[in-house]
Amino acid sequence: MKGVMQMPIDLRSDTVTTPTEKMRDAIRDAAVGDDVYGEDPTINRLEALAAERVGKEAALFVTSGTQGNQVAVLAHTQRGDEVILEENSHIVEYEVAGLSTIAGVQPRTIKGVNGQMPLSDIVSAIREDDIHCPKTALVCLENTHGDSGGRILPLCYMEEVYKISRQHQIPIHLDGARLFNAAVGLGVDPKEITKYVNTVQFCLSKGLSAPMGSILAGPKSFIERARKWRKMLGGGMRQSGIAGAAGIVALEEMVARLEEDHVHAKKLAEGLADIEGIDIDAEGVETNMIMFSIEGLEMDSDHFIEKLKERGVLANSVGRYRIRFVTHREIANEDIDKVVEIVKRIIAEAKVSL
Amino acid sequence: MKGVMQMPIDLRSDTVTTPTEKMRDAIRDAAVGDDVYGEDPTINRLEALAAERVGKEAALFVTSGTQGNQVAVLAHTQRGDEVILEENSHIVEYEVAGLSTIAGVQPRTIKGVNGQMPLSDIVSAIREDDIHCPKTALVCLENTHGDSGGRILPLCYMEEVYKISRQHQIPIHLDGARLFNAAVGLGVDPKEITKYVNTVQFCLSKGLSAPMGSILAGPKSFIERARKWRKMLGGGMRQSGIAGAAGIVALEEMVARLEEDHVHAKKLAEGLADIEGIDIDAEGVETNMIMFSIEGLEMDSDHFIEKLKERGVLANSVGRYRIRFVTHREIANEDIDKVVEIVKRIIAEAKVSL
Amino acid sequence: MKGVMQMPIDLRSDTVTTPTEKMRDAIRDAAVGDDVYGEDPTINRLEALAAERVGKEAALFVTSGTQGNQVAVLAHTQRGDEVILEENSHIVEYEVAGLSTIAGVQPRTIKGVNGQMPLSDIVSAIREDDIHCPKTALVCLENTHGDSGGRILPLCYMEEVYKISRQHQIPIHLDGARLFNAAVGLGVDPKEITKYVNTVQFCLSKGLSAPMGSILAGPKSFIERARKWRKMLGGGMRQSGIAGAAGIVALEEMVARLEEDHVHAKKLAEGLADIEGIDIDAEGVETNMIMFSIEGLEMDSDHFIEKLKERGVLANSVGRYRIRFVTHREIANEDIDKVVEIVKRIIAEAKVSL
Amino acid sequence: MKGVMQMPIDLRSDTVTTPTEKMRDAIRDAAVGDDVYGEDPTINRLEALAAERVGKEAALFVTSGTQGNQVAVLAHTQRGDEVILEENSHIVEYEVAGLSTIAGVQPRTIKGVNGQMPLSDIVSAIREDDIHCPKTALVCLENTHGDSGGRILPLCYMEEVYKISRQHQIPIHLDGARLFNAAVGLGVDPKEITKYVNTVQFCLSKGLSAPMGSILAGPKSFIERARKWRKMLGGGMRQSGIAGAAGIVALEEMVARLEEDHVHAKKLAEGLADIEGIDIDAEGVETNMIMFSIEGLEMDSDHFIEKLKERGVLANSVGRYRIRFVTHREIANEDIDKVVEIVKRIIAEAKVSL
Ligand SMILES: [Ca+2]
Ligand SMILES: [Ca+2]
Ligand SMILES: [Ca+2]
Ligand SMILES: [Ca+2]
Ligand SMILES: [Ca+2]
Ligand SMILES: [Ca+2]
Repeated sequence: MKGVMQMPIDLRSDTVTTPTEKMRDAIRDAAVGDDVYGEDPTINRLEALAAERVGKEAALFVTSGTQGNQVAVLAHTQRGDEVILEENSHIVEYEVAGLSTIAGVQPRTIKGVNGQMPLSDIVSAIREDDIHCPKTALVCLENTHGDSGGRILPLCYMEEVYKISRQHQIPIHLDGARLFNAAVGLGVDPKEITKYVNTVQFCLSKGLSAPMGSILAGPKSFIERARKWRKMLGGGMRQSGIAGAAGIVALEEMVARLEEDHVHAKKLAEGLADIEGIDIDAEGVETNMIMFSIEGLEMDSDHFIEKLKERGVLANSVGRYRIRFVTHREIANEDIDKVVEIVKRIIAEAKVSL
Repeated sequence: MKGVMQMPIDLRSDTVTTPTEKMRDAIRDAAVGDDVYGEDPTINRLEALAAERVGKEAALFVTSGTQGNQVAVLAHTQRGDEVILEENSHIVEYEVAGLSTIAGVQPRTIKGVNGQMPLSDIVSAIREDDIHCPKTALVCLENTHGDSGGRILPLCYMEEVYKISRQHQIPIHLDGARLFNAAVGLGVDPKEITKYVNTVQFCLSKGLSAPMGSILAGPKSFIERARKWRKMLGGGMRQSGIAGAAGIVALEEMVARLEEDHVHAKKLAEGLADIEGIDIDAEGVETNMIMFSIEGLEMDSDHFIEKLKERGVLANSVGRYRIRFVTHREIANEDIDKVVEIVKRIIAEAKVSL
Repeated sequence: MKGVMQMPIDLRSDTVTTPTEKMRDAIRDAAVGDDVYGEDPTINRLEALAAERVGKEAALFVTSGTQGNQVAVLAHTQRGDEVILEENSHIVEYEVAGLSTIAGVQPRTIKGVNGQMPLSDIVSAIREDDIHCPKTALVCLENTHGDSGGRILPLCYMEEVYKISRQHQIPIHLDGARLFNAAVGLGVDPKEITKYVNTVQFCLSKGLSAPMGSILAGPKSFIERARKWRKMLGGGMRQSGIAGAAGIVALEEMVARLEEDHVHAKKLAEGLADIEGIDIDAEGVETNMIMFSIEGLEMDSDHFIEKLKERGVLANSVGRYRIRFVTHREIANEDIDKVVEIVKRIIAEAKVSL
Repeated sequence: MKGVMQMPIDLRSDTVTTPTEKMRDAIRDAAVGDDVYGEDPTINRLEALAAERVGKEAALFVTSGTQGNQVAVLAHTQRGDEVILEENSHIVEYEVAGLSTIAGVQPRTIKGVNGQMPLSDIVSAIREDDIHCPKTALVCLENTHGDSGGRILPLCYMEEVYKISRQHQIPIHLDGARLFNAAVGLGVDPKEITKYVNTVQFCLSKGLSAPMGSILAGPKSFIERARKWRKMLGGGMRQSGIAGAAGIVALEEMVARLEEDHVHAKKLAEGLADIEGIDIDAEGVETNMIMFSIEGLEMDSDHFIEKLKERGVLANSVGRYRIRFVTHREIANEDIDKVVEIVKRIIAEAKVSL
């Protein structure tokens, strides 16, 4: 369906995925009702299915990963509390300071390696009762971890954090925007990951290709509170089964194929690794995301991205000399070869022009 | 399409409207893109169309009326400010205290008549600069006004409030969840109403029958700020053209037919007015909503609503002895007769059983 | 000590009272310690004394009435809650929107008569559990009620509100900035008032003449939470016994003499009532405050206040034609006669100049 | 004045300082007025003096360092903004999450060395305009930096941060709770430090020995905004000249003597450095604070502090094996020798008991 000339190879993010034909049909024919009254049968089915998939009592359809995370923070904390998060987690970096502005809680950030905050740092970040200090009310994890290039938190790491959280009676929320990439990458059922957290948010609109929406899942009483906070944020919609129908297809049919995106990402990483001037840790590519440095070239990332765009490849800069490529359903095997070729040509031309 | 026995006559709200076939087709075939990147062509078309319809520079698709109002308050005010609103306006009554919790602003409520705050009360509510007092940063109007039974704010009233707002340099935001009902009720272009306000929110999912979503419209710079606040609330979605496609149909095809809902509401009100024990101001029914008191009966509203439900009619209580009926696309002319008949029967039986 | 010419008769507020000689001596010699560590013996003594005086388990020294009220709201509520208050209560009118900005709660205001919200309005303002609505978490009363001219809430009214609050399990906070004026006015022990509320704030720096500070009192667990919220607001001070020493004198020696201020206010009101052009309800003067209208004169309140000032009398405007006089320790009996005389002269001259 | 047996050597903090006789006299005789009306002559004098001392246009008396910092954040930012701070700065660690809860802003923390955030980390923490991200609105510095043991930020470091802030048009607020210790330690006028920041907060109640209060200083328009935010926090007091009088003495007479506290701290550090089992960087002691590790002993800090207390020495734990000693006006030269002796004895006994 992608024209040779006109359609770009869009590696900016897996959010750009468009709904499948099957999703469009499901949307067309969705049974709907007023979800604020709890009467949308499609949403009810999606929420039940989603809860089951991540092994939680209940689930809530939200309009975005950001909304799912913000609602989770609101439902877990009280104003004046503190939340422990990895320094470059999505909640801290890309959610417009919502946790401080809406929930009135303070992030306590810890520098992690591949998204993993050192366990001892988590323990020492947990506050004792002190009149000067906020109460530590929540630990957030992110799996896969976006800013480190889609790295998976190992199950044993999740388990260790969970033990700490049990010991200190502090709940864990998982920003699992790409939870299914983590599960597929590990070759496990997602429940093997989510059993180590109290609540989880995952996105339907990224690799899973639904047009919009995310899921927040957790204990029943938590989801009840979350439903009210979602209403405050304006996430209470009416015949939202229209959107939910695609979410059901996403969960039922789109999970297994994520493997393909991972294979593509790995292949792309290996292809780039052979190019002089590109610095990439191809072994660290675990899911559908690769990050590499072009500091060895005489070019910054804005310039490099411009060159890619001229040749029909879209990508995002994640630093002055750092580029991110994300694979997804609309990136085919042959696109990978093309992209490697295009990068080679850009670098070759750059050297000539010196 | 509504079965004689199984499908209830649902007068709870016009939010229960389901998408039309044409909407479903439009959704099925919608061109989509990633709206966070501003690349969803359907959303772009909807926002341009919506802005044009209410005579504003720009517009923003939001997931609900609540989100549109909350984003408007965020974009108009700073924390610590005060907002003037009618005492029973939707923002104060039914938006989960969002304006105080999210925006950190204080509502200053004024008791209105049919949604109209006395002009002199507005003027005296505007604060002078004083170290003890918040700054008055916004006036909110609601048209039609829900809690007074869908009453329309007269154009001359809108104009007078606008003059006050100009004189004191305080912007006006209109909660126009049912703006098009007001316009149709007045027989004017909606721009005749919105010209008296700086910004406006209207719903696509009520009388206009889209499955979800609302529009916030206003000056370009305001909408830019609003777009960021929407992101914070999690309202930034991806291929939301899926939802937007129905919104376009709603704006293009569903406005004129609101007249029919108003005719039905009037007829229903007149039918009820003839029943002993029902206290209703049938002349005050201006749009698609009627409210009446059953205080004359030996029954409270919960009981009355239960009796209606047994006979296939759904309605909401809006007070211990107060009932609300809302007409919409899925209420046919014959339903009106049925409802009057059913109410008569309930009352007759109640008297017998005494 | 007040010079005939230079020192004005300051009727603006009882906040202008300066510390007595005894207070200054007590301050000079106060035993102090670090109150953040709980080691200031004078503060500890003041808090114990204050708790005892209002019949509560514990008390907290705060830097102002505003801080006491804000800390109370923080300790009683969670973000997203709603608080019921009289429309013109100090918390709503003169505390810079703090309850919305700091605590993130929404005021639900009810128009009162002499500070008394109609009981039925309180009952109907209490929300049922509803996904659209904030939870009603607190009722605030104000006694004496400033904006109605220092009116006392009758004990039977307090009792009725207390019954409602018990029935709905919603606590009551009393803004008793002038609690002792109410007690003296009623001729009862302050505990007869405070037994009808869960928590109370009263000021040391108004009629009681301490240089600064207020008290928040309530159950022990409440005061513990309040102490932490006070810290967040920056109200945790060090050797604050310096200020607390005056508070002890205020409580031990300055309460009984408030009677004198009330007698002065009554006399002043009666003197003004005889002047043509002054509209005053002298019977409604119950404590140390009087309010009157000059709408019958050809002068607005700014002008009137200017004229008073030229003659050495300071007062505050509380409306375009409304003036407030407050009596206190530094207003002597002969000042009352002078003020009546001065008002007469201003009005006479105004008439001549027409 | 300190009895051999009864009065402990209190090294917990310089906040424990009590007012001098001269301060008590000044307080006793202070001219006062109502500061909410701007009429307290002592406060006005203190604020003018304080502004002059730190080279700023205007100043504001606040009740604590926490209040000064929180008011500064409120006056510099809008909700939804981000503030750059050192990871262990007082504002983040010990102000009860106020900046997130009250101001609704998100801290962006950077790990520093001796309180100095790496310049390149500051630069990369400054956000570009992006719909996902809060706006970087403020940089906060802390000098001396408490959590690193009272380290002084070098003037050249201050200058470099200032250059960055000018380049990016982002203001700097200095938490100078111990600003005068920094100035004395550097041997410069405090203005040499504060010329590199837009606004500064310093404490009167620590080394300077006033019983309570801090100063916030900055541009006139900033202080005007700050005054209103202070009112919201309940920091608007009445005859606060009572407290302010001591502040004037503090500024006029207590600055130079801080040198003595520094000499004591150095001597104490050197004494401890000779003790086996104590790990201390005596060279790093720059002002009135020392921190040392007892990890080499078979004792944790709670136990060590208990042992000190038994012998009449009070100290605080700042980690499982980390102790802090702070010198101040009430610590005499001979106390230093005693403390070294006591520590030696505790360690000796501990070894014996093994
Ligand atoms: Ca997508
Ligand atoms: Ca609908
Ligand atoms: Ca006073
Ligand atoms: Ca009201
Ligand atoms: Ca001190
Ligand atoms: Ca950090």
